[in-house]
Amino acid sequence: MINAIFFDIDDTLYSSTDLSSKARRTAVEHMISKGLEMSVDEAYEALVRVVKRYGSNYANHLDKFFTDELKRPPDYRMIAAAVIAYHHTKFVNMRPYPHTVETILQLRTLGYKLGIVTDGLPVKQWEKLVRLGLDDFFDTVVISGDEHVGSNKSDPRIFTIALDRVKALPSEAVMVGDKLNTDISGANKAGLVSVWLRTPRDSEDSPQAADVQPAHTITDIRQVLDVVAKLDGRRPRARPMR
Amino acid sequence: MINAIFFDIDDTLYSSTDLSSKARRTAVEHMISKGLEMSVDEAYEALVRVVKRYGSNYANHLDKFFTDELKRPPDYRMIAAAVIAYHHTKFVNMRPYPHTVETILQLRTLGYKLGIVTDGLPVKQWEKLVRLGLDDFFDTVVISGDEHVGSNKSDPRIFTIALDRVKALPSEAVMVGDKLNTDISGANKAGLVSVWLRTPRDSEDSPQAADVQPAHTITDIRQVLDVVAKLDGRRPRARPMR
Repeated sequence: MINAIFFDIDDTLYSSTDLSSKARRTAVEHMISKGLEMSVDEAYEALVRVVKRYGSNYANHLDKFFTDELKRPPDYRMIAAAVIAYHHTKFVNMRPYPHTVETILQLRTLGYKLGIVTDGLPVKQWEKLVRLGLDDFFDTVVISGDEHVGSNKSDPRIFTIALDRVKALPSEAVMVGDKLNTDISGANKAGLVSVWLRTPRDSEDSPQAADVQPAHTITDIRQVLDVVAKLDGRRPRARPMR
Repeated sequence: MINAIFFDIDDTLYSSTDLSSKARRTAVEHMISKGLEMSVDEAYEALVRVVKRYGSNYANHLDKFFTDELKRPPDYRMIAAAVIAYHHTKFVNMRPYPHTVETILQLRTLGYKLGIVTDGLPVKQWEKLVRLGLDDFFDTVVISGDEHVGSNKSDPRIFTIALDRVKALPSEAVMVGDKLNTDISGANKAGLVSVWLRTPRDSEDSPQAADVQPAHTITDIRQVLDVVAKLDGRRPRARPMR
């Protein structure tokens, strides 16, 4: 019997990697508008190198863009223009993947407890849920950066915390995520039913591990309903055909 | 002879204090929407106490709102909603004070070098200039938080740096700002002609010093043209009557 279904956020509920690329490209275009003498491609690739070098949650990518890549002091006017453009692009374009809201609503209607298990900083991850309009849908939100959590998804303990919060056993819970080496590997270690949402490309932060085997593989979030129906027999009464 | 005119940003080129109040009030309204059980006034006053306690550039006011004022752990969902509301309010409402752009354009047309002398973090201060649409208007922008500056406006050194950058003597330069104990006191110590833009109320960060005497006091930025005309004889040819 399945009681709880957990979801990752980034690249599972919305297109995080594509949105970051779009926002970074817009950011470099705005630096070029303010006088940066580089092509968009050249500047974008330099910025991506910085993001890979320092990780995506580092706060000063644009300073390092100047000091590491261009070997000159930060141009704060250009950085300010880039920050504005980056955030505007993210805010305007952040929306759930198609069929995400309907799938989550159907799972709730079927009576499952729903949760988020995600790596990141609490305010940043909640900001995504609020901006996506999804912050009311989950019974629990477990974020690695929360001081009461203290482990990330490659460690099974974060799943144990999530299970405790919804009072489910590992075998009664499903974890849906796009990253083999965190979502799937951690869920497997913790004894959950892992569902790999296979997205068109790898996240920038985590190359996919080849040796991790998900229990189920899907390519569209609606297929979570099929996986759960197979495991549990509960099916939506009237699943809308859209 | 006057060669250069320097301006502060916050509460001189735009209404920083009012905009922050408006943004904080909206932020607490959004926390209340997400379930905070307080009145808007009560929550707003608690948040203002936190801002006064930690200073306006501190990054985690909202965490402290929960831990210091409500004596409970941060609610990151509410904080995320507040952060979003705060930034949206600022972005939508940030615009120069009336007559700011026309005054700056006239001073440029008259041949003066124009500069910014401001306390704060470089990217944050440049963000304001970019958002206000004013980042192209100044010959130099000197920001206390820049590692090449390293002093704030209560110290005359920041004015010496600004004077060097536009190649002006102190007596050939005017400093326009709203804060007696930084803009006016520092400009006086450095030997510039100080012009106090007297705004309806004090900034939250700096109570006004009673013992600092500005060389000139104005209540509208257009009066900078009158001060400069008196000191220097240059007047705009055809000052538009709006």
